[in-house]
Amino acid sequence: MPTQSANLRGQSLIAGEPTFGEAGETTGWNPSTNESLSPTYSLLAIEQLGAATEAAAESFTSFRSLDPTTRANFLEQIAQNLTDSSETIIERAKLETGLPESRLRGEISRTTGQLSLFARLVRSGDHHGVRIDPERSERDPRPRTDIRQRKIPVGPVAIFGASNFPLAFSTAGGDTAAALAAGCPVVFKAHNAHPGTSELVGNGIMEAVKKFELHPGVFSLVFGVGTEIGQALVSDPNIAAVGFTGSRSGGLALLKTASERPIPIPVYAEMSSINPVYIFQGALRDDKSDIKALANTYLSSVTGSSGQLCTQPGLVFVPSTTEGDEFVEAVANAIEHHEGQTMLTSDIHNAWLNGIHTLATQEGVVEIGRGETGTTQNSPAPTVFQASIDAFLSNPVLQSEIFGAVSLMVRYKDIHDLLRASQALEGQLTTTLRIGKSDLEGASHLLPILEQKAGRLLVNDWPTGVEVGHAMVHGGPFTATSDPRSTSVGTLAIERFLRPVAYQNFPQELLPASLKNDNPWQLNRLIDGVVTKVDEK
Amino acid sequence: MPTQSANLRGQSLIAGEPTFGEAGETTGWNPSTNESLSPTYSLLAIEQLGAATEAAAESFTSFRSLDPTTRANFLEQIAQNLTDSSETIIERAKLETGLPESRLRGEISRTTGQLSLFARLVRSGDHHGVRIDPERSERDPRPRTDIRQRKIPVGPVAIFGASNFPLAFSTAGGDTAAALAAGCPVVFKAHNAHPGTSELVGNGIMEAVKKFELHPGVFSLVFGVGTEIGQALVSDPNIAAVGFTGSRSGGLALLKTASERPIPIPVYAEMSSINPVYIFQGALRDDKSDIKALANTYLSSVTGSSGQLCTQPGLVFVPSTTEGDEFVEAVANAIEHHEGQTMLTSDIHNAWLNGIHTLATQEGVVEIGRGETGTTQNSPAPTVFQASIDAFLSNPVLQSEIFGAVSLMVRYKDIHDLLRASQALEGQLTTTLRIGKSDLEGASHLLPILEQKAGRLLVNDWPTGVEVGHAMVHGGPFTATSDPRSTSVGTLAIERFLRPVAYQNFPQELLPASLKNDNPWQLNRLIDGVVTKVDEK
Repeated sequence: MPTQSANLRGQSLIAGEPTFGEAGETTGWNPSTNESLSPTYSLLAIEQLGAATEAAAESFTSFRSLDPTTRANFLEQIAQNLTDSSETIIERAKLETGLPESRLRGEISRTTGQLSLFARLVRSGDHHGVRIDPERSERDPRPRTDIRQRKIPVGPVAIFGASNFPLAFSTAGGDTAAALAAGCPVVFKAHNAHPGTSELVGNGIMEAVKKFELHPGVFSLVFGVGTEIGQALVSDPNIAAVGFTGSRSGGLALLKTASERPIPIPVYAEMSSINPVYIFQGALRDDKSDIKALANTYLSSVTGSSGQLCTQPGLVFVPSTTEGDEFVEAVANAIEHHEGQTMLTSDIHNAWLNGIHTLATQEGVVEIGRGETGTTQNSPAPTVFQASIDAFLSNPVLQSEIFGAVSLMVRYKDIHDLLRASQALEGQLTTTLRIGKSDLEGASHLLPILEQKAGRLLVNDWPTGVEVGHAMVHGGPFTATSDPRSTSVGTLAIERFLRPVAYQNFPQELLPASLKNDNPWQLNRLIDGVVTKVDEK
Repeated sequence: MPTQSANLRGQSLIAGEPTFGEAGETTGWNPSTNESLSPTYSLLAIEQLGAATEAAAESFTSFRSLDPTTRANFLEQIAQNLTDSSETIIERAKLETGLPESRLRGEISRTTGQLSLFARLVRSGDHHGVRIDPERSERDPRPRTDIRQRKIPVGPVAIFGASNFPLAFSTAGGDTAAALAAGCPVVFKAHNAHPGTSELVGNGIMEAVKKFELHPGVFSLVFGVGTEIGQALVSDPNIAAVGFTGSRSGGLALLKTASERPIPIPVYAEMSSINPVYIFQGALRDDKSDIKALANTYLSSVTGSSGQLCTQPGLVFVPSTTEGDEFVEAVANAIEHHEGQTMLTSDIHNAWLNGIHTLATQEGVVEIGRGETGTTQNSPAPTVFQASIDAFLSNPVLQSEIFGAVSLMVRYKDIHDLLRASQALEGQLTTTLRIGKSDLEGASHLLPILEQKAGRLLVNDWPTGVEVGHAMVHGGPFTATSDPRSTSVGTLAIERFLRPVAYQNFPQELLPASLKNDNPWQLNRLIDGVVTKVDEK
């Protein structure tokens, strides 16, 4: 059994110090073999958590005051450290997650790319949101005083890593990158499904903190029993905001804890989504439509990463037409060639089995195709089901997320069916239209509803593969996320960890650099309500 | 007894229809005389509320799709309607609130000014937050798809009017203006302290809705028993966000209700603040310092509008020096000439009396001066107290808000006292430094803490008189507000009622106008992360 434990301590990293946990232990597991991986990880007791959160609070004043260049260089140093140890990280992540190497290589690029993107944002300084309303001494009846606004970081952030992205949504993932870019120290709760990967990445962050001689409280990595340490972390008075990617039950529990604090704090939880796809008749019938190709790309989106993606299309509306029948048949035929891939953990595998058992036994739900079980442990056969629109509308179980390679095709008659079904949807991360040229009018009727139901809308594309950019929204109405005003991917994600502060009648000497007249950080600013680029004034 | 009931119906306005309430009745009161004002206002039963919220939901799709010019004109029409009936409104508001005419004239200007400011923002379109990441077909290994982002309104908003600003924080106040500008229909719960004023202003909004032939559900004005109708409104599934200005207990109750909904919604409650002022030694001693003038401006800020302002300075730190003694003496002398003004309601007057009784009986608190009781009902004598820094630090009662004309001067020895006191503060709307040239270093030590405690910081100014502009933050950490990421005054307030949505790989025909390539609304945009003004491209 190949394990790689040489450089792993099996301990939490609290403010730069490896720390033995006093509340039991765990290990990573190889989901392909169901064998445990060394080393043993000691789990932090709740009483030990204060050392991390207090150090985070202590580090906050100096960390948030960093100049943009230093902060950007710090983020890029983390990216560089991950790149330097990427072979070790990928080797360990493969063992702990069962994800294929190509996927993990892509994910490490994505993770370092996110860090670099936030470094560029920090250099631009646009996230300071500078607004200046200059003095108007001549105003009648009352002179106007000089008022300036900037956004400042909210304070130390608790972040919970996801199981399904051991790098991009984990230790140095999007939430961590956004929080550090904003100027918030991070206390990161590792997902116990990939402790070794978390430790290796945590080392990379810790080394960057040391290299830049930052206060060590800027970053801590804690291992613990999820529910207990999670509640304690969210209750901790030094924590000012929470980032979470995971299950609905987990997210809702943290949200409840946060709202019951003496001082409630925001929770940005990305939870569950079945990412409905609407296949219009034109997508199957218009010129050059290739029904088999569409079936194949659909199944690639359903089964990629063993279906363990937040944006996996778990629900597809297919017209009750001859072409719709052809599509369903093409899917049924194509799925036979899809072999199961290892899922992340045996718990996730068991939940998937339970989920499809529940779905299969709902009235009106029929299995229409199934792939092969994989050769490793925990690699179930991808499966597709079909149901009528009436069955779908009468039974909310049919829109429960089943995390893994399964999708439900719902057959509809006309646009009215789609409108009704859309109104009945829970909040989603994405919705997708597959249309031909003849479907523009139908699509335009559906879009106003879909905008109310999802954070991202796609046309003739698939929702998996979330681009990391400036325009991305990886968020959406409850219960896709706990806060639809936000995104957890892309540069807008930094807004989650900022709040505005106004400075009235300040002498130049006391203003922060971002607000001084001579604009030393070369920021774009809103002056008297007018967007004013740095090269304009 | 002068009453003016000719044009008042005494009914709720539900989606353009005057509606008789079936849950009892109330009247306005003249707080100067403690006499009731006609007409009688019928109170809406909870079962009647659905008509307003359902109409709001029905109006949402068309209202949010208005082009910027029509929406801006609509906001300006409301302003015009208020201006046209301003004499009637002011006459009624005087009767219902006891506020002086000059104050009410200023407030109506402020209210129409806010509406016009939001109209200008809507015309600029900057609140759409347009971001475009263009396609990059040449990108290796995976081509980048076109992704665009805009912000859309969240849905119907429930707004609760404040007692102390019968116009600017009431029916057509800042919350309503921001919500309508964002594209959100409004269900407005009138404050029962000024029902006639609310109705007159509500008529002005309703007429603008009619003139522009908007769906009548865009605006409803409801009268009801505050706690019952408030909870029902916040629980209503058609309501997507809440704006509130009022007491801490009221705001926290709504926050709890909103967080316990099946789908929680954001509550923007502005609650309580004592707006600490730090008088440094230099402000009393440096060249040209005029201790008496400072005492007078302080008392103007404390007693203006009978102290019933969210930003009233209820707490002032004064140095334990000879000059500090002189300041306290000057305050004690000056306050004798301040006559009590009518408070808004007898309940508020009674709460003030209870508040100062409680404060006066705390250990170490001494009354140092008191003005005259006014000649009308409910016009208590403005009062100032003094305590030591140790008394302040050992007793949280000394930082409880007492809504009205009272202020506590806390005597401190040195900057360490101020640092300790600042750390112990609850969240505030404002904090103010009064400094001389010799105090820059001391101030710079204090500012990092104050930034964590307040939404607006001032130097050598007074916090009352909240400017309505682009840079204003009227918000702050809990319990000043329920959500420190926001402001309830100024153009940034619109962000509370918006959420981002991304559009991936959309054909031009299906994109909303704000995102089309030819930029028909002439918006500034973030293109590939770069601020791009409309005249640049």
